[in-house]
Amino acid sequence: MQKTVIIVAGGSGLRMNSETPKQFIEINGLPVLMHTINRFYEFSSNIEVRLVLPQHQFDFWEALCQKHNFTKTHELYSGGKTRFHSVKNGLQSLSPNGLVAIHDGVRPLASIGTIRNCFMAAEEYGAAIPVIDVHETIRKTDGLYSHTVDRRNFRLVQTPQVFDARLLIDAYRQEYNDSFTDDASVFESTGKPVMLVDGNRENIKITTPADLIIASALLSQGL
Amino acid sequence: MQKTVIIVAGGSGLRMNSETPKQFIEINGLPVLMHTINRFYEFSSNIEVRLVLPQHQFDFWEALCQKHNFTKTHELYSGGKTRFHSVKNGLQSLSPNGLVAIHDGVRPLASIGTIRNCFMAAEEYGAAIPVIDVHETIRKTDGLYSHTVDRRNFRLVQTPQVFDARLLIDAYRQEYNDSFTDDASVFESTGKPVMLVDGNRENIKITTPADLIIASALLSQGL
Repeated sequence: MQKTVIIVAGGSGLRMNSETPKQFIEINGLPVLMHTINRFYEFSSNIEVRLVLPQHQFDFWEALCQKHNFTKTHELYSGGKTRFHSVKNGLQSLSPNGLVAIHDGVRPLASIGTIRNCFMAAEEYGAAIPVIDVHETIRKTDGLYSHTVDRRNFRLVQTPQVFDARLLIDAYRQEYNDSFTDDASVFESTGKPVMLVDGNRENIKITTPADLIIASALLSQGL
Repeated sequence: MQKTVIIVAGGSGLRMNSETPKQFIEINGLPVLMHTINRFYEFSSNIEVRLVLPQHQFDFWEALCQKHNFTKTHELYSGGKTRFHSVKNGLQSLSPNGLVAIHDGVRPLASIGTIRNCFMAAEEYGAAIPVIDVHETIRKTDGLYSHTVDRRNFRLVQTPQVFDARLLIDAYRQEYNDSFTDDASVFESTGKPVMLVDGNRENIKITTPADLIIASALLSQGL
């Protein structure tokens, strides 16, 4: 079955106190995005990789590929004004036969097991997303007040989120709506459920400078 | 104002696939618990440190202190059958005048800023706990189903949780109850509110082997 991954990297790096958008920052000698792309090729050498970037970053990315002699095949798509629009651009002229994963460019630590679990469950159920338990106490805020909620009823959601391509293309025909925080929420708004599968705790989204230190340490350890 | 910290380290290390309870595992040459104790002395050289350990670990801990020539003053208290009971033991004969922090032994990365924020807010409001925003999408599960909730309404809770000592001693006079997941929930069940203050994202609770790698990297960077 044809497998595609759309890697979305629209970040401008505001939270990193960095001029370089976080997807381009080097970890252990390689830009974050290249680590991410490598993961999917490690999962399957036949996967089609689509990379969604802000158009003004195309040249910079291509220079980076030259510098690092990065020759893994991938096609570039232009980012949109929100993540929804970026994914929609990445879905252009995608074959409806097959499975499509949507993945955050700044998650270089998705394990092969996580990627495989998601593709397998999506093949069976139409949609699957990786989640992890919450290890911390979690509180719900309500204006000035807050109260503890039962963490056993909550999960933290990661990517890749994997879907039957035909169903996801349909879902992205909807009008954009503020409640779309991830692809699962777009998909579910068509009335279809998503399956939760086990993610891996190391699969962090690089957002802060400390996350870079963490990702570097984990990648060095072969995670 | 007298400041005390009760460091609770009851963990048996089951999730670590490790024979050594996680509070004793060495990171960068020093057991986790010593890093943790050092943080509080860095915050204030006058702080009273109480360490709650399972009684059968006392000898092992004292041998570790000798091995590492660890001479920071701290008094040992026996752990109980739950965290609630351990904290209650640690509160024995505490002076009600002053502030008391309850801290997880396996959080060696609480920043001095986080500790200070909590003590300052507790002095003013009676109780304060450090929280961080949720960076991931978060879902609530309900049997077989699950749905996305608005992450802006949720916070992840860390320690130290700091309280007016008199009020916390009163709160711990209650009967134990399964809903007590942290000290804040014990405190709040007496009808009093806790103030939320900014924690630091690096202040992780070491639970898994990957957390050890992360903590090692962050401590090496001086975080």
